[in-house]
Amino acid sequence: MKKTLGIIGGMGPAATCDLMEKVIALTRASCDQEHIHIITDCNTNIPDRTAAILQGGPDPVPELQRSAARLETAGAEVLCMPCNTAHHFYDQVADAVQIPVLHMPRETAGILRQAGVKTAGVLATDGTVQSGVYEKALAREGIEAVYPDKEDQAQIMRLIYQGVKARAVPLADIPVGEILSRLRGRGAEVFLLACTELPIAFAELGQMEGCLDPTRVLAFAAVRACGGETTADSPW
Amino acid sequence: MKKTLGIIGGMGPAATCDLMEKVIALTRASCDQEHIHIITDCNTNIPDRTAAILQGGPDPVPELQRSAARLETAGAEVLCMPCNTAHHFYDQVADAVQIPVLHMPRETAGILRQAGVKTAGVLATDGTVQSGVYEKALAREGIEAVYPDKEDQAQIMRLIYQGVKARAVPLADIPVGEILSRLRGRGAEVFLLACTELPIAFAELGQMEGCLDPTRVLAFAAVRACGGETTADSPW
Repeated sequence: MKKTLGIIGGMGPAATCDLMEKVIALTRASCDQEHIHIITDCNTNIPDRTAAILQGGPDPVPELQRSAARLETAGAEVLCMPCNTAHHFYDQVADAVQIPVLHMPRETAGILRQAGVKTAGVLATDGTVQSGVYEKALAREGIEAVYPDKEDQAQIMRLIYQGVKARAVPLADIPVGEILSRLRGRGAEVFLLACTELPIAFAELGQMEGCLDPTRVLAFAAVRACGGETTADSPW
Repeated sequence: MKKTLGIIGGMGPAATCDLMEKVIALTRASCDQEHIHIITDCNTNIPDRTAAILQGGPDPVPELQRSAARLETAGAEVLCMPCNTAHHFYDQVADAVQIPVLHMPRETAGILRQAGVKTAGVLATDGTVQSGVYEKALAREGIEAVYPDKEDQAQIMRLIYQGVKARAVPLADIPVGEILSRLRGRGAEVFLLACTELPIAFAELGQMEGCLDPTRVLAFAAVRACGGETTADSPW
């Protein structure tokens, strides 16, 4: 009997669907009943994580904990959060429930270590960058994090907030290729799409080459944590 | 304050994500927090609906009711079921909760009536066809249902079960264009993709012309039922 997966979602809603699709695609199943039972709380009442970390915006922890508890009560046996920035609050979420909560940056760092990566370029929200969530997870595996410069970081934020979340700016307006090329110049062997909106944008832009998608890493870890068989040998 | 939407899902999992994406795309929102709070139970323990209707397979009602109750307990205020065949059991699901449950075939029939359609081609599982779920919903609006012949119906079942659910047969192996052309010959003015796996297949095949997608109709109705503003004036 496979375990039931709980997804603390809504950060944003599109990234939540993206994780669900990746879990479904990575599960070896020939009919509905062989898939993993997933309960998703696409909780759009969770305040913006970056605004909380950088600008003293409303604290997302109470709503994150409410979602975690709601999912546990509903029957989830393993939890995950498809929002990298939310992992700044990981300990407080994990403390709110009795069931395990997967840690997306640590799972991602583990995959990079297995691949022998020494330096990873981190594309993420300002909140994720400033909080050091990825830096810490990568350091545990002996991997160095490099980041875009200030102007490129502002473009990444525009891609996330105006491009994907608001759909107000065409994704192609952001010079992604040039940003990646400059990151490569700083030593990045691989690019981490360390905001869950980025794999959506990069897939649409056809820019997945050389990138590792932490959402796919989390989906892969979730299928295995629930006792499912994966359709691939690794999340690359 | 918008209402929380509950989705009784897992029938199949891909169709569940498809509905969520359509709800998200149809909601006018410029940030995560303006989207609708959705709780989804992708309950893959629900037995196959067509097998239950036609072959005396396990009864899906207890699990459907369990999902409905789980979602109500978790805070959902409006429910919907992204599975057309499951609407054969609609009354039993609606009776299990105090909150309203949207009815996909009836919402779809309403949209067709508004468009002045008199005859609709119904593409669906054997279970949906035999149960008359669409025939009854369409008849309430004075619309006639026409169906594929026996061989074409077998191809539609293959597209649903082998093509989308199992991903064991390439979608392009099914002669969809010819099936639609024969249905048009029987008087169909529009094609109802009346199994939630079909909009997924038809979108991939580039065959949406002349089709109405009940999943999109349901998403449209769900956004409005939750008090959200839609990004389009109709689900066409």
